[in-house]
Amino acid sequence: MTHVRPTGPRTEMSWRGWGDPAQAAPLPESLLRLLGGALGIAVGDGRPVPESLSQVRLAPAQLDRRVALELAGIVGAEGVHADSEARLRHALGRSTPDLLALRGSEPIAAPDLVLAPDSHDQVMAVLERCSARRVAIVPFGGGTSVVGGVEPDAGGYNGVVALDLARLNALEHLDEESRLATLGPGLRGPEAERLLADRGYTIGHFPQSFEYATLGGFAATRSSGQASAGYGRFDEQVMAIRVAAPSGTLELGRAPRSAAGPDLRQLILGSEGAFGVITSLTLAVRPAPAMRVYDGWRFASFADGVRTVRALAQDGPRPTVLRLSDEAETALSLAQIGGGGESTALPGCLAIVGFEGSADAVARRRSRVADLLAAAGAEPVAGAGDSWSEGRYRAPYLRDALLDAGALVETLETACFWSSLHGLRDAVSAAVREALMSENPPTPPVILCHVSHVYAAGASLYFTVAAAQSDDPIEQWRRAKAAAADAIAAAGATITHHHGVGRDHVPWYEREIGELGVAALRSVKRTLDPAGILNPGVLLSAETLND
Amino acid sequence: MTHVRPTGPRTEMSWRGWGDPAQAAPLPESLLRLLGGALGIAVGDGRPVPESLSQVRLAPAQLDRRVALELAGIVGAEGVHADSEARLRHALGRSTPDLLALRGSEPIAAPDLVLAPDSHDQVMAVLERCSARRVAIVPFGGGTSVVGGVEPDAGGYNGVVALDLARLNALEHLDEESRLATLGPGLRGPEAERLLADRGYTIGHFPQSFEYATLGGFAATRSSGQASAGYGRFDEQVMAIRVAAPSGTLELGRAPRSAAGPDLRQLILGSEGAFGVITSLTLAVRPAPAMRVYDGWRFASFADGVRTVRALAQDGPRPTVLRLSDEAETALSLAQIGGGGESTALPGCLAIVGFEGSADAVARRRSRVADLLAAAGAEPVAGAGDSWSEGRYRAPYLRDALLDAGALVETLETACFWSSLHGLRDAVSAAVREALMSENPPTPPVILCHVSHVYAAGASLYFTVAAAQSDDPIEQWRRAKAAAADAIAAAGATITHHHGVGRDHVPWYEREIGELGVAALRSVKRTLDPAGILNPGVLLSAETLND
Repeated sequence: MTHVRPTGPRTEMSWRGWGDPAQAAPLPESLLRLLGGALGIAVGDGRPVPESLSQVRLAPAQLDRRVALELAGIVGAEGVHADSEARLRHALGRSTPDLLALRGSEPIAAPDLVLAPDSHDQVMAVLERCSARRVAIVPFGGGTSVVGGVEPDAGGYNGVVALDLARLNALEHLDEESRLATLGPGLRGPEAERLLADRGYTIGHFPQSFEYATLGGFAATRSSGQASAGYGRFDEQVMAIRVAAPSGTLELGRAPRSAAGPDLRQLILGSEGAFGVITSLTLAVRPAPAMRVYDGWRFASFADGVRTVRALAQDGPRPTVLRLSDEAETALSLAQIGGGGESTALPGCLAIVGFEGSADAVARRRSRVADLLAAAGAEPVAGAGDSWSEGRYRAPYLRDALLDAGALVETLETACFWSSLHGLRDAVSAAVREALMSENPPTPPVILCHVSHVYAAGASLYFTVAAAQSDDPIEQWRRAKAAAADAIAAAGATITHHHGVGRDHVPWYEREIGELGVAALRSVKRTLDPAGILNPGVLLSAETLND
Repeated sequence: MTHVRPTGPRTEMSWRGWGDPAQAAPLPESLLRLLGGALGIAVGDGRPVPESLSQVRLAPAQLDRRVALELAGIVGAEGVHADSEARLRHALGRSTPDLLALRGSEPIAAPDLVLAPDSHDQVMAVLERCSARRVAIVPFGGGTSVVGGVEPDAGGYNGVVALDLARLNALEHLDEESRLATLGPGLRGPEAERLLADRGYTIGHFPQSFEYATLGGFAATRSSGQASAGYGRFDEQVMAIRVAAPSGTLELGRAPRSAAGPDLRQLILGSEGAFGVITSLTLAVRPAPAMRVYDGWRFASFADGVRTVRALAQDGPRPTVLRLSDEAETALSLAQIGGGGESTALPGCLAIVGFEGSADAVARRRSRVADLLAAAGAEPVAGAGDSWSEGRYRAPYLRDALLDAGALVETLETACFWSSLHGLRDAVSAAVREALMSENPPTPPVILCHVSHVYAAGASLYFTVAAAQSDDPIEQWRRAKAAAADAIAAAGATITHHHGVGRDHVPWYEREIGELGVAALRSVKRTLDPAGILNPGVLLSAETLND
């Protein structure tokens, strides 16, 4: 087939917050009550976001002009951007520290130049030039990282280039018999889904960042979507991959599975742009579902809910979406949908149980799951499933508004085996609470938690933390996050289930895989990227890369 | 829990063929007809297997006596074997070339010493000593490799030690909530299944080598079992792993899935003892099924069968066992169960469709699958499922008897995406046929093929080839296998779906992952095994390891 690309305009991510500014909305009553109540914030306490780009200070560009021209020559005029707006748009992800940095007074480190190649060969040429000139490269997809995955680090380099993959955005091939689609890494979630929906297929990957994040980013960070119970993780859908590395091209994946040595696809997935640049992906796709339904069910306790969710994950039938909120998160969710007074007094724990597929398949699974849930003592909650579905991509907008109002709001996540789940949740909550209570003055937090992804052997836990901002909210969160990460490590859980390592998780990640694991990855890095130009400081600590 | 070990005696693998000599049986009528008919062999043409160990010549041991004593000191008297029988038992796998070598006149390269450590620490100490003394180590599980995975290569080393993991054979821990069992790598399939069955669980991994192969071997070679449609591949069941490498210990796996960087478990799985020695495995287990049933169904053509098997793999319901034979294999299978004359005249293609689980779950899935198969035009074949089940581990015994009779019999396998399946089958069959017809005199082959493992995106193809032995059957097969491997590579398929790389597939494997893939693996190898002592020549070509 001829390459097919998305049509229509592409909404740029707001340069000062999440998503499309036109989608921002005032805080709902429930969150205003939270601010004034548990967090003790008088709305208006917050630091304002800058009104205009001119209010944001960027660190000066340092790339030599001749090198910039050389690089521009590779991608052509259409693919080069050196203006402040382009630099700022590629300077940060969308973690709370990133958003606080935009509100702060420190100059922001930004790439010197943004290059948007339109072919694998152009990417290879850029890598070759940057290796020769010792210019760092940050591969850039949607810029939605919440772990410092795209922040440039120019230390020791002659400049930093953001390599924006937006122009590698074609549906290159569709193999309907094998249900495989070959796609460009720069396609955003909705763009890829629309191209496939026109042909009757879906990828089925819907993380909260879906509207802005890209396929290449999903792969590079081992993303997992809200419908992972049904469609699997993104990494499980990657059947073949093409990678441009400074040392050459890797083409991996000749069959769904193979016994031909270690699975090298799994060495690229999760490498976060530090080993190479993904220039093409072949993904497992499925027929677009005729039906999607999301139900809400309430359990008396988190323990009851976990037991039942575990049984569904282990013995089936597996819903497409399966999530379970703890009591605190449930109270807030039900308040948002205007749950009645009595029911929110004892909110229990809300599960979202969704089904996608043919009408027949949905009806069959939904009815069997409903029987199992009812037998486990759960009760249906009218409207909760639809409310979740309508709000599923809204949380980052709400965070912007809460930050504006003076709250510190951030999320963190982990995963473990089932037998550690309750202990892990308690330990992380206690660590975060203690850290925020140790601020001077103390900033008592509200901590919400849900089981966001399930497997037969375990699950992920996703925490949302809110507190009043201290005088230095970036440091305040750094301390709370470090306490959480230490608790995760002490519990033997993984430092991240789907956000990735970025810069923020490097110390814990290096401890998680051990000295020898780090050494093995470092040897791979040196082989693929001998000059060490790819995303320095992300995945592995920069200072240890060249020892 | 306290470590629990298998009780009762352990049947040793025959030193001159497959399995338990007591299980050998005369060739069935159908295979005698094949010999006298299509293969044109007068039974009795074959070279006999040696009668006694004294008839087998081993290459002389070369390990320095002081080094041998040093190593013996690590594992204790119980763990050291230097006699000819022990050396021979660790010298070869069970490929047809291995079995032909036992019938040949060339001396057999055997390890100088067999060491059987009984702890991770002993393994580490052996690795340290062998690195210091430049002694090669071949990690040894069940010795069932059919790709040259355990043949020692002493070139450039001061000797070769077989590291037999048989004493690392405990069920170390059972986490019933997470459905995880931590097990020693030296446990054979049936030993592990019995330990787990006593506690109500199964691994569900049943490859043809099940009775003799070990868990460590399953992991190191990315084994896939006959029930993979239901239980998944072995590599998918490995949740955590401990690895002893000369450079240190790796402990990997803190959750079912993680976004913490590349999945390092996937770098060890498939590394075939060249990167480290697996000393403990944590596997996903399932409740032992109350019911197992295997049905036979006949399709009019292979194309019809593939279409239907693909639909089951893509849209479900997924049987636990799902295999589809081509016409030639079907004719032979049905002849073995005494299928009537008329039905074998037009044998069609036989599918084995098995279900394991609770009685309810089996009944529900079996009835839905039966409806789909009938709607696709398939007909039930009485007795075929039970016949397959009874004979599922017998093929290697039959191969021994066919080799005795003068036939060359071997299998090979590959995998690809669905859209390439028919072309791949035709290309491999044609290449093997042409190679064997080019022998002087020509040795016209019988080639059987089945789809042995299915995925949503593709499947594996498993070929059985039989011909009359030429004067030099090892070279005869080498040429036929090379022709098949070239055809697999040309079709863009993988050189192995579940047999592994060993020595035999190295040239094609290195082309499959490309120069850069090889370089990446070589860098990992150098980091984990700086002296290059682990299984030299397996997985990666020995001559390129130290460049």
